[in-house]
Amino acid sequence: MKFYRIDFKPTGKSGKCRDDQSLLDCAHQAGVDMVSICGGHGRGNCCKVRVLGGAVSEPTANELKAFSSQELKEGWRLACQTYPKGDLELLVPPGSMTTMQRLQVEGFDIDVAPDPAVQAHNICLTAPSMSDLQADAERILGELRNQGVNCSTIDIEVLKTASPLLRAWGWEAKVFVKANEIVAIGPQSGRQLGLAVDLGSTKIAAYLMDLKSGKTLAAKGAMNPQFAYGDDIVSRLSFVLEKKGGGKLMQKVVVDELNRLLFELCDEVSARPDEVVESVIVGNTAMHHLLLRLPIEQLASAPYVPVVKDAVDIKARDLGLDIAPGTYVHILPNIAGFVGADHVAMLLSTKGIWQKEGLVLAVDIGTNSEVSLIDGDEIASVSCASGPAFEGAEIKDGMRAAAGAIERLRISDNIIDYLTVDKVRPIGICGSGVLDAVAQLRLAGIVNKSGRMLNNHPRVHDDEARREFIIAEGEKNEFPAITITQKDVRAIQLAKGALRSGIEVLLSARGRSSGEIDKVIIAGAFGSYIDISSAMTIGMLPALPLDCFEQVGNAAGMGAKLALISRSKRMEAQDIASKVHYIELAAAPDYVKILVEATGVDEY
Amino acid sequence: MKFYRIDFKPTGKSGKCRDDQSLLDCAHQAGVDMVSICGGHGRGNCCKVRVLGGAVSEPTANELKAFSSQELKEGWRLACQTYPKGDLELLVPPGSMTTMQRLQVEGFDIDVAPDPAVQAHNICLTAPSMSDLQADAERILGELRNQGVNCSTIDIEVLKTASPLLRAWGWEAKVFVKANEIVAIGPQSGRQLGLAVDLGSTKIAAYLMDLKSGKTLAAKGAMNPQFAYGDDIVSRLSFVLEKKGGGKLMQKVVVDELNRLLFELCDEVSARPDEVVESVIVGNTAMHHLLLRLPIEQLASAPYVPVVKDAVDIKARDLGLDIAPGTYVHILPNIAGFVGADHVAMLLSTKGIWQKEGLVLAVDIGTNSEVSLIDGDEIASVSCASGPAFEGAEIKDGMRAAAGAIERLRISDNIIDYLTVDKVRPIGICGSGVLDAVAQLRLAGIVNKSGRMLNNHPRVHDDEARREFIIAEGEKNEFPAITITQKDVRAIQLAKGALRSGIEVLLSARGRSSGEIDKVIIAGAFGSYIDISSAMTIGMLPALPLDCFEQVGNAAGMGAKLALISRSKRMEAQDIASKVHYIELAAAPDYVKILVEATGVDEY
Repeated sequence: MKFYRIDFKPTGKSGKCRDDQSLLDCAHQAGVDMVSICGGHGRGNCCKVRVLGGAVSEPTANELKAFSSQELKEGWRLACQTYPKGDLELLVPPGSMTTMQRLQVEGFDIDVAPDPAVQAHNICLTAPSMSDLQADAERILGELRNQGVNCSTIDIEVLKTASPLLRAWGWEAKVFVKANEIVAIGPQSGRQLGLAVDLGSTKIAAYLMDLKSGKTLAAKGAMNPQFAYGDDIVSRLSFVLEKKGGGKLMQKVVVDELNRLLFELCDEVSARPDEVVESVIVGNTAMHHLLLRLPIEQLASAPYVPVVKDAVDIKARDLGLDIAPGTYVHILPNIAGFVGADHVAMLLSTKGIWQKEGLVLAVDIGTNSEVSLIDGDEIASVSCASGPAFEGAEIKDGMRAAAGAIERLRISDNIIDYLTVDKVRPIGICGSGVLDAVAQLRLAGIVNKSGRMLNNHPRVHDDEARREFIIAEGEKNEFPAITITQKDVRAIQLAKGALRSGIEVLLSARGRSSGEIDKVIIAGAFGSYIDISSAMTIGMLPALPLDCFEQVGNAAGMGAKLALISRSKRMEAQDIASKVHYIELAAAPDYVKILVEATGVDEY
Repeated sequence: MKFYRIDFKPTGKSGKCRDDQSLLDCAHQAGVDMVSICGGHGRGNCCKVRVLGGAVSEPTANELKAFSSQELKEGWRLACQTYPKGDLELLVPPGSMTTMQRLQVEGFDIDVAPDPAVQAHNICLTAPSMSDLQADAERILGELRNQGVNCSTIDIEVLKTASPLLRAWGWEAKVFVKANEIVAIGPQSGRQLGLAVDLGSTKIAAYLMDLKSGKTLAAKGAMNPQFAYGDDIVSRLSFVLEKKGGGKLMQKVVVDELNRLLFELCDEVSARPDEVVESVIVGNTAMHHLLLRLPIEQLASAPYVPVVKDAVDIKARDLGLDIAPGTYVHILPNIAGFVGADHVAMLLSTKGIWQKEGLVLAVDIGTNSEVSLIDGDEIASVSCASGPAFEGAEIKDGMRAAAGAIERLRISDNIIDYLTVDKVRPIGICGSGVLDAVAQLRLAGIVNKSGRMLNNHPRVHDDEARREFIIAEGEKNEFPAITITQKDVRAIQLAKGALRSGIEVLLSARGRSSGEIDKVIIAGAFGSYIDISSAMTIGMLPALPLDCFEQVGNAAGMGAKLALISRSKRMEAQDIASKVHYIELAAAPDYVKILVEATGVDEY
């Protein structure tokens, strides 16, 4: 029996494992929470890993079935079928991690030299006396001038606190300067913190950053509390348009939640919220407008124009965010009515990937999906109303990716293997599970390419007016059966059709075909859960080698971090936003034809 | 009987009068509310006018007594003793008007070409469409760029309202730009208003201005409500230092009062407060700090340093002022701990006077008096703690200049002539009355030059431990007697001594003597009430020809107006503030000697 060292990238975890342990067992032993649907029988096709370095066992029959020869050549394997034969370096793609693991906000550090918009300067002043009666403000500005710092004004909130603080600190302090304004003051020993936020319509991810080192000090995620007033953007906008005070309420709940996250993040590293001297927030255009309490009437009806496209800098106090009150919140620019700052942030953080490829598709999948096609120096974007099916909504047994949600599923003849979040008894099925289910039903020939569910399997039932496929049998009076209905399949068809048609419009506008795509970047939480093979099976994503896909997780949050710690990255974001050519789907030639084709259930 | 036309400058009033009417009667007939203490017997010496043009009767014995030959040559006369002999142009100095007349906020228009810091631009936009999806903000900024206006950002409060307004107004609007920011938006038919405020420790004067024409549309005065928490600056600062929440309260009451004045002013001309697109506020350094809620510890103890000296621009919403919320309040610069923006404003508005003279004294008399000596291009300032006696406080029967206050007083042997505010039965004596009383007691030989009250007049009584002079006899159980006590004389001595010593320190620092002064500018409410002759009699002001004195009324308010309607005037204010050399009295050589000399009661 031999022991090998295995590194699991990008988790940072590693462990010593025996040669008779599968890579899946090794992962679990090392604390890497990988998916295992079938319990290691090789049916699951879900525990994909890529061997980056080192020797492993030969592929099994299951693996030969699961991967193309090209994929095998690239090192793709099923972790439950593969055994180490030496020290290994493995890549665990986000899609092979369990939901809860993937839900966690990313904490990886960034490889960019910090150069934040808010700069810190230490100052040592002479105390005033009867022979030196200079006012405190001019004393500070004079010292900065002596240091060659271009700064001419001091925020009123800094003026309100600086005088007693300077005296308490013996006339030594650290001042924080943005453009030509002092926005905060602290002791020389103090920190220079920043808050990056990805404000999603479903989830909020918040990161506390050290602006000097560029390091992520703490990260936290939470549900967007606006959810209580509408599952999706459209219903939230309706709420605001219809309810008096709705806009105010919608802003309040989200700012309250941001403040709660801010306090928790600070608490984690024993910092005070007023040590945070800048924040960058990204979100889609609707989240952006609701956060800033901008009017939304013109966003909710044709031609769907945002109030503002450019980046907005707003005083933290004007937003109600409890960071240092004289500092700014920077909101990245939007692209159009339904392609927002979050997509800009995603393009910013994945620039390193798409810049070196030829034809790249960057996809953010959600209730509203944004897709960009990057062709050299040209970027075109569309917004696809993919609807809430991907989020598990409008699906008979659909649910969010919470405990008991079936998140992965495989059908082998009459055996249904599935995996639930937190590995408890299933109580519903979440988006990635529904996607798997439809793909598996299609592969099993139970759903045909037009999306019709055939009554050709013992688990298909015609119940009243409803045809459905039973995934998990119910238990009387306690757990109802979990099924996928014909209607659920139709909902997924509409969702994937909307997304795929957007991709096709982009390709058509550039005169390119899907086969020419070099790389597909898939961002966002849902995009990280899904099994790419399933998405290809139903034609949601173009059929390409697995290697072409990169699931990058919360790229919008990463973009927010970059814009927080680097002025040049912030300028790049503005540059990206102004460069993108937005294409309105409804106005695209042959759109209906493209959409009809895209709603089929077949690989293409 | 002949009729002559008489113009009363600077009131703007005129009338036709008979040749057998005294100039005083003519004034009253024309609606000019001139002082008359003695009822026209020529004893009062208070109804001074200056004949600027036209023929009048020969001087009476009373007038020959009241004026020097030089003064008579300059046209100075007593209005009750003089009769017209042709059409006349008369100058009525502020000191010859009744208190209530003088208390009224000035409404004279300004002779400066309007060039406000906030500029208005009309814009006409193309409505967005499916083929023109530009965001509203970029659409507005693009149009301004087309017009050659340098503007790159829009305040968040404007963003919050512009989109529905633009649609309601058919894509036509007027935008208000300060520096490179849109701070407000209105319909093209809308006005461009401004609010100028002189925030005194006792009184607030507020002016609603048309920024386009430079005209004063409405003016209102009110008491400073901070008065409830302290008569004078020192007690208000103590209140803030000692009471938890005192600073917040002190700011709130004054901002509430400013908002009340704003609403009343707007109401008067059927305007909305959000049509006001900028405000300029001036006040002394303490009022400035309390308004902005700046810390005051360092202002209240040596070396008495303000938080900030330079002009402050603060968003109206950050101050809580209910003008258009994206606009700014501009606070003029301070000079030093106790020489504030109000003095800068006074120097600004009187620049036309002092610039053409050689050696000029500019005096703002109050609980705290500020004095500047302008010698060509050099300006030096002092702050004198003259105390509250001039305001009628700490005087036995002292009161503010309200109905029933004796404001003017003359002693002729045993006859006491006096004038009360609103001409009702006397209930007390206000600052100008006390000043007159001490001067008249000195002239009558009842008070000697060291300030001692002698028992040499039937009206002098030694009551218990108190020696006093009875001005008005009391009526049993209803009206007590009104008296001037020895202690009152001492209080006035301290007040005038503080002021005069400041003047002497300034002169001494320049190596000049009081006889060399070409002009004395006296600003502020109290300075406008006082009888200059009385002030000279007791040595409060240097003995100079009457012609050297110019009582300019609320010059600080006028300075605020100038800085509101003219960018170059605003720059001049900054220039004046930076040029002034502040002299700390306590540190001046021989200060104690100068102070002792200045507290005597004698002309010098």
